[in-house]
Amino acid sequence: MYPILIAAICGVLGLVVAAFMAVYVLRQDQGSARIREISEAIKEGAVAFLGREYRILAAFVVVVAVILGVVPNLGWLVSTAFVFGAVCSGLAGYIGMHIAVRANCRTAAAVQQSLNHGLRVSFRGGAVMGMCVVGIGILGLSILYVAFHSDPNFLFIIPGYGFGASSVAIFARVGGGIFTKAADTGADIVGKIEQGIPEDDPRNAAVIADFVGDNVGDVAGMGADLFESYVDSIIATMTLGAIAVFSGVLGKELVPDEATAWFLPMLVAAGGIIASIIGIFLVRVGVKAEMGALLNALRRGTFSAAILTAIFSFLAVYFLCGREGYGINIFWAILVGLVAGVLIGESTNFFTSYAYKPTLNIAESSQTGGATLITTGFANGLMSTIPPVILVVVAIVVAHHFADIYGIAIAGIGMLSTLGIQDATDAYGPVADNAGGIVEMSDLPPEVRERTDALDSLGNTTAATGKGFAIGAAGLTALALLLSYTQAAGITLADISLLDPLVIAGILLGVMLPAVFCAMTLNAVGKTSFSIINEVRRQFREIKGLIEGEEGVKPDYSKSVAICTTAAIKQMIAPGLITIISPVIVGVVLGPLALAGFLVGAIACGFILAVTFANAGGSWDNAKKWIETGAFGGKGSDAHKAAVIGDTVGDPMKDTSGPSLNIMIKLMSIIALVIAPVLVDFSGLL
Amino acid sequence: MYPILIAAICGVLGLVVAAFMAVYVLRQDQGSARIREISEAIKEGAVAFLGREYRILAAFVVVVAVILGVVPNLGWLVSTAFVFGAVCSGLAGYIGMHIAVRANCRTAAAVQQSLNHGLRVSFRGGAVMGMCVVGIGILGLSILYVAFHSDPNFLFIIPGYGFGASSVAIFARVGGGIFTKAADTGADIVGKIEQGIPEDDPRNAAVIADFVGDNVGDVAGMGADLFESYVDSIIATMTLGAIAVFSGVLGKELVPDEATAWFLPMLVAAGGIIASIIGIFLVRVGVKAEMGALLNALRRGTFSAAILTAIFSFLAVYFLCGREGYGINIFWAILVGLVAGVLIGESTNFFTSYAYKPTLNIAESSQTGGATLITTGFANGLMSTIPPVILVVVAIVVAHHFADIYGIAIAGIGMLSTLGIQDATDAYGPVADNAGGIVEMSDLPPEVRERTDALDSLGNTTAATGKGFAIGAAGLTALALLLSYTQAAGITLADISLLDPLVIAGILLGVMLPAVFCAMTLNAVGKTSFSIINEVRRQFREIKGLIEGEEGVKPDYSKSVAICTTAAIKQMIAPGLITIISPVIVGVVLGPLALAGFLVGAIACGFILAVTFANAGGSWDNAKKWIETGAFGGKGSDAHKAAVIGDTVGDPMKDTSGPSLNIMIKLMSIIALVIAPVLVDFSGLL
Repeated sequence: MYPILIAAICGVLGLVVAAFMAVYVLRQDQGSARIREISEAIKEGAVAFLGREYRILAAFVVVVAVILGVVPNLGWLVSTAFVFGAVCSGLAGYIGMHIAVRANCRTAAAVQQSLNHGLRVSFRGGAVMGMCVVGIGILGLSILYVAFHSDPNFLFIIPGYGFGASSVAIFARVGGGIFTKAADTGADIVGKIEQGIPEDDPRNAAVIADFVGDNVGDVAGMGADLFESYVDSIIATMTLGAIAVFSGVLGKELVPDEATAWFLPMLVAAGGIIASIIGIFLVRVGVKAEMGALLNALRRGTFSAAILTAIFSFLAVYFLCGREGYGINIFWAILVGLVAGVLIGESTNFFTSYAYKPTLNIAESSQTGGATLITTGFANGLMSTIPPVILVVVAIVVAHHFADIYGIAIAGIGMLSTLGIQDATDAYGPVADNAGGIVEMSDLPPEVRERTDALDSLGNTTAATGKGFAIGAAGLTALALLLSYTQAAGITLADISLLDPLVIAGILLGVMLPAVFCAMTLNAVGKTSFSIINEVRRQFREIKGLIEGEEGVKPDYSKSVAICTTAAIKQMIAPGLITIISPVIVGVVLGPLALAGFLVGAIACGFILAVTFANAGGSWDNAKKWIETGAFGGKGSDAHKAAVIGDTVGDPMKDTSGPSLNIMIKLMSIIALVIAPVLVDFSGLL
Repeated sequence: MYPILIAAICGVLGLVVAAFMAVYVLRQDQGSARIREISEAIKEGAVAFLGREYRILAAFVVVVAVILGVVPNLGWLVSTAFVFGAVCSGLAGYIGMHIAVRANCRTAAAVQQSLNHGLRVSFRGGAVMGMCVVGIGILGLSILYVAFHSDPNFLFIIPGYGFGASSVAIFARVGGGIFTKAADTGADIVGKIEQGIPEDDPRNAAVIADFVGDNVGDVAGMGADLFESYVDSIIATMTLGAIAVFSGVLGKELVPDEATAWFLPMLVAAGGIIASIIGIFLVRVGVKAEMGALLNALRRGTFSAAILTAIFSFLAVYFLCGREGYGINIFWAILVGLVAGVLIGESTNFFTSYAYKPTLNIAESSQTGGATLITTGFANGLMSTIPPVILVVVAIVVAHHFADIYGIAIAGIGMLSTLGIQDATDAYGPVADNAGGIVEMSDLPPEVRERTDALDSLGNTTAATGKGFAIGAAGLTALALLLSYTQAAGITLADISLLDPLVIAGILLGVMLPAVFCAMTLNAVGKTSFSIINEVRRQFREIKGLIEGEEGVKPDYSKSVAICTTAAIKQMIAPGLITIISPVIVGVVLGPLALAGFLVGAIACGFILAVTFANAGGSWDNAKKWIETGAFGGKGSDAHKAAVIGDTVGDPMKDTSGPSLNIMIKLMSIIALVIAPVLVDFSGLL
């Protein structure tokens, strides 16, 4: 029992650090009246959105909880775990976003003192989210263990927790993603393209909605995504370990006893929390910070955390499994996951940063217009799938070599163990972005805006790395869940032939679903942004003196936010439901073997599309930024106009559809795991 | 033996019809001196391109033939079959394209008499390609059977024929596709976007290259694609049938004897040839033809051919296998393939024609600019994967229900049996397109151009249906080849678990490859069109009086054609080689099980991407055409400019990358089948 105590203590420690960071942020100066006014508007919008989203989610959770409760072979304990997972995920998102919307004005104020101070405030604002995710995640699992582990069906109860977290995640990610990109493209199309006014111009009615979107999409949505990956990877490994011990199908030598099955994943994750905390405190720069120094500071944090995690994992394995034989084998599996995660993140950076050739080529292709720029960027996204796929394949093969399919699962934990600091660097980005916008709207001196631009630009780099990391983690986690599902459903390796036509049918349907999901989310952004565009146009048309910038004339920001909220909430439902219902239908109609094929197809295609969308979008964004530095005619040139088209096409791809795919593949896999007890000895209606 | 005689006679009959059509076309009036001059330039360019392409291909074929000859377990008979297949495919493309480039001026002349006469000349010009493909295809297989069927290894020799055909196809499709779209986008970008001159304007130096491209890409390339599908599906079914008889692993009750194994696929295909010939002769309209009547005429031809094929297939099955038990079962499998093929074609029409909502929505989204139009069209392409995937899944499940995996293979033949007329309606399109261009360049009265526009527009509809058909056929054929491969490599259903990490690794790599292939081909078009754009710009800059349209001043068309040829030939090599080498590497390094996973992944993802690319591209094209009819401001409006961007993005997707994927998945699968004897009892270097 005492390893669970260690894990719980580490979780509490994570929350203590989160509280420390939150208090630090809240104590900072909130800036001028103008800054506070803008920040207040953002806060209001974000809180209103989250409130409405959570109300819809609450209804959904109640319905699913009742269904889980009454279905034979599942029952009320699974249902309870599901509700608990949903609440934990919602809580992490709620706290993280509430601090983020308070950190933006404080960053805007801090950056007036120095770049270094601005970095500290914004990074600590983001770190609250990172620490909440890991702290609440592991604490929730510990509570679940203590409460239910004596139940004979604990193995089938614990996936309910992941299902709850995943359900919140899909709606938070899709809803937040639709909101943020609809507001962003709406603001850009009317503002930059039609009216020719700069980004973040206060005359644009959608500008506050755009800032709100950064928080609800990139902070709350990303947090829910990573929370889900984190707990799901632990659950998948626990389940596989427990099955190995109980049923013996995996070979008992793999996981020696029940305690190891439950505790090892928790301890490795707990070690990652401590490593992340240390890493977070290592992020600091001298007073005269330059861009390079900032990036180095963040890198020092993440790399140190990765190395420390490796050490802590070794210790965990050593104490629980010994140093010989499978002990060290399991460590190698963890290590390969950890290294693959870091490298996938770096490869994303190569394909999306304008420091490298791919993005420079895209910028160059803007000279022959928007069409060639789109094609070059899309091709770059497709090409960028090579390193992540090869790295995941290597991780799978190596981890399996050392510790069979259990190795694949625990490699996922290895990859995700540094999540505390990864999410901190991710959530820092939108805080800095918001601060930049607030500075722009507050008529502060240009050198202040230059500083926030530096912070923002750094945020884009870390966001690219973070996105790659999130996708890699999602792929490995979903695979681990798939393996757990097959074991839980009693499908042995010999049962499920690749050549079974039902399996092939499942794979084809599985490969199709991410494509359809992307189509739905892209259309959702299109429809939502269409309503914003009409609203912003209406305000420019009807509010006298607005476009001329007359003193005292302001657009109605809250109207745009309200329209965006209503549309985004409405549009998130269909993609969310199709994700939840599809695996159930495939499992029931075509049977559990076809469902396994379906998951493999969906994971593989979802992974490829997620990488393509994220990197195509990222490289268009940065190609535009490169042109804005003066290349190919700079701002206002034809090349820049072409680049704006690319950026606008990429926005929903990289911030709505792409990241939502991560959740989609995990959610479908964990649903399969949850319904596995129902599918045992069932061969489908067909 | 006599069924082979029947098949051979049907093949000869196909060639006789081709000759009849060719003579008919060649006897027509060639039109005015101006028309002949333009047509001559197109012919020269197309012949020069094909000549250079075939020289490269010849070198490639020799190298591969030597390798096949010396590899143990393969040998010189496989090598001979390979060379023979390559020559047959090349010959079909050569003859078909030579007639197509002679039919364009004759269509331009004929259309001056009447629309009906224009349709007849252009359709018969295209029918030469269709009949050559099926005639040469089945005759080649018959010759191969007569020459080698007594060899004990005939089972392993015959896939060599398909490999040869597929190798020619990949280079013809990729090279032709790069040429046609580079010329097209190059001409559009400088002509329409930069200089604001109309399409097919004689001042544009790339305009002849554009016409040449239609022939080398859409006639020769498409022909090679369908030739490959046709022979590959027959070979896959033959191999599976023979394995069922010889090794008994499939259950001897499926295919009763060796004769049935070899003859049934040939006879079903032969019945399709007769059905196609009858269908082709049914394509005729009255003298006063309207657009609707034209479409009905083509539809009457294809639907009649489909119904006749069903009847002939039933007869073939009845005579070879009897009416009871497996006989009628095999017929049902054929029928489900045939019906699925027709429906997939129709669904493509729904997603790409401006008669339906999806394309109208895309046109509407042009009002908010190029970016939203791109997103809406791309989402439409992704969404359009639903009907083809579901239809293929239903075909697989139903065909398997009736006749096990043999049913899946023969369903592929069912789908492809009407290929003669399908390819005729496909090849008709570029002939009509060329004729329209020639009319535009020849200062003929506007009503003549209106008639060629009607023919062209009809060609676009049939091209969309034909593309859907080609993709569906490719998917089913590749699956059949995959099944044959596993049987030939001695992999039983129980051997290959979906959960084997090497299989999962194979699937991931397989899903990645089509994405990378698309990236390479998109980039290839980009690079090639970049050189065209520079050349056209140079000519406008350096040739005095060109842009002003001064009497007697003409651009140097042949220079553009030469540049395009050199660049396209150079760019086709890398995507072609990666397709050929990848399955060999996966098979050797990761082993035959991983190779099977690799193929499943590649087929599934290639299928989805092919549909997405074809339909996104088709719908952008038609959204532009819809705006050109006057919607949303018509030609020259901002909406039209946005639609031109969409069309330009879609061009390489729908005419280069998308269709090449069809060949890619079949080629990789047949390579696996060819090297299967080498991989037996081998478990990979890893």
